[in-house]
Amino acid sequence: MAKLTLVGLGPGSIDLVTPAARDAIESADVVAGYKAYVDLITSLIDKQEVIQSGMTREWERAAAAIDAAAEGKSVVLVCSGDSGMYAMAPLVLELLQQRNPELPAVELAIIPGITAANACASLVGAPLGHDSCTISLSDLLTPWEVITKRIEAAAMADFAITFYNPRSKKRKSHIETAQQILLQHRAPKTPVAVVNAAYRDDQGVMLSTLDSFTSLEFGMNAAVLVGNSNSYYFGDWIVTPRGYKNKYQLETGAVLSGQKRGHSLNTATAEQQGEAVKARQEQGEKAGELV
Amino acid sequence: MAKLTLVGLGPGSIDLVTPAARDAIESADVVAGYKAYVDLITSLIDKQEVIQSGMTREWERAAAAIDAAAEGKSVVLVCSGDSGMYAMAPLVLELLQQRNPELPAVELAIIPGITAANACASLVGAPLGHDSCTISLSDLLTPWEVITKRIEAAAMADFAITFYNPRSKKRKSHIETAQQILLQHRAPKTPVAVVNAAYRDDQGVMLSTLDSFTSLEFGMNAAVLVGNSNSYYFGDWIVTPRGYKNKYQLETGAVLSGQKRGHSLNTATAEQQGEAVKARQEQGEKAGELV
Repeated sequence: MAKLTLVGLGPGSIDLVTPAARDAIESADVVAGYKAYVDLITSLIDKQEVIQSGMTREWERAAAAIDAAAEGKSVVLVCSGDSGMYAMAPLVLELLQQRNPELPAVELAIIPGITAANACASLVGAPLGHDSCTISLSDLLTPWEVITKRIEAAAMADFAITFYNPRSKKRKSHIETAQQILLQHRAPKTPVAVVNAAYRDDQGVMLSTLDSFTSLEFGMNAAVLVGNSNSYYFGDWIVTPRGYKNKYQLETGAVLSGQKRGHSLNTATAEQQGEAVKARQEQGEKAGELV
Repeated sequence: MAKLTLVGLGPGSIDLVTPAARDAIESADVVAGYKAYVDLITSLIDKQEVIQSGMTREWERAAAAIDAAAEGKSVVLVCSGDSGMYAMAPLVLELLQQRNPELPAVELAIIPGITAANACASLVGAPLGHDSCTISLSDLLTPWEVITKRIEAAAMADFAITFYNPRSKKRKSHIETAQQILLQHRAPKTPVAVVNAAYRDDQGVMLSTLDSFTSLEFGMNAAVLVGNSNSYYFGDWIVTPRGYKNKYQLETGAVLSGQKRGHSLNTATAEQQGEAVKARQEQGEKAGELV
């Protein structure tokens, strides 16, 4: 059966392309992808046929890749990051179903990659150390009302957030609206990182805070990472704690009085646990306004 | 200066360990990590000193890694998935700050890895194709009230969800509570995938639906992926669409009447766009109950 493999390249540098992705690309008959992504892997392309297309031409890329696979060729469709996150996997599945409603007519495989949230976070510490979400600010395919409701929910429930597609020439105000929504729930000095083109030649990392990051220069290739209510700066690193201070003495690793290793956090002994748990509880109460 | 590198190994198979991670491990003096993760990379360990420790012994692991780096050794601390997502990066930063409040006393580097959400999603299609969040159901360090508020917010705002640490011997009811919350906002037949030990020898993939997945056997090594209100099954693949059908004819890729390529989705022409946009709008109204 014809074979189509969706390959996540990761953020862009060749040393973050997994061996599984590399093998799939090197052994393919055809490599399809958005031109900027194919350019990232020219070192892996030799005799393979290349199908490239421009931005907003996802349909053409996906259809051409499926056509080539249906002709019996071994095809890889490359995406930056992970193919399943704001990328080509859903569209490929939709087109395969359109052509053959019961079962895919080509054998499909998916090789995961490092998505932008994790790549960008690694450059600034641990901003996504606890529960987090990703929200795309592009309204090309999603109503803006749906996007703003998701921002509100994430703000209220205190998720750390990675904004994908934070800004484009036609879409300058979206990130400012997101900022205003978040400022209703988080402190002005909440750490924010803006990472441009992570792990590419033109990489840029900017550290800022919730009240002022929108004055920075960034565009579509950037991701904007916003900490939660417990996040803080330590030097140039952003830390979003997992909550060890709720249960352990950081000096010695000893379990705090009233707590038990391997058991649920005892929230009744909050007084003994210092500020950390109190902060968490206030945050819980704030999230409680949701219901 | 002494050097400590946090390395995300990805899900567990050696062909998803990036070249950057492999190089860091192979050139280190010391490799530290939870025993099960160190076991994944025995093929990369030769003359390096190994520091292993058991589960819930994160503090000891992190402290030992920092100590070794402070002695001038080149140390890697390995994590499964990505070190910044429910892993060691925040704790390492907290301990570094504890020891030296102004600036880290060791040079720190972070190599990102493929987190479980992306690894597991790749095995079942594109369940995280649109906005999504990760929620850990472990209450060892986080009050359970905070966790349930996040589940409620994610349910209401229609995020696709990956649950980390979905179940343990002492914690069987959490995933059932999550299911009950989600059923108040999503259809019983919403696709759910339970993925055990993705990309490891004992990998298991189970496809189910929101109303019945809790009867499956799974534990702490599993991730549970829940689609959003637009997700559906196509054969054995889960598809969470990005919204192409809102704007394009899937047959031909032509832009629908009233829409413009590269411009915001025109929600005023919903009638021409069929059911997809209507569903999105209803979802928007539902999320609207939040405010």
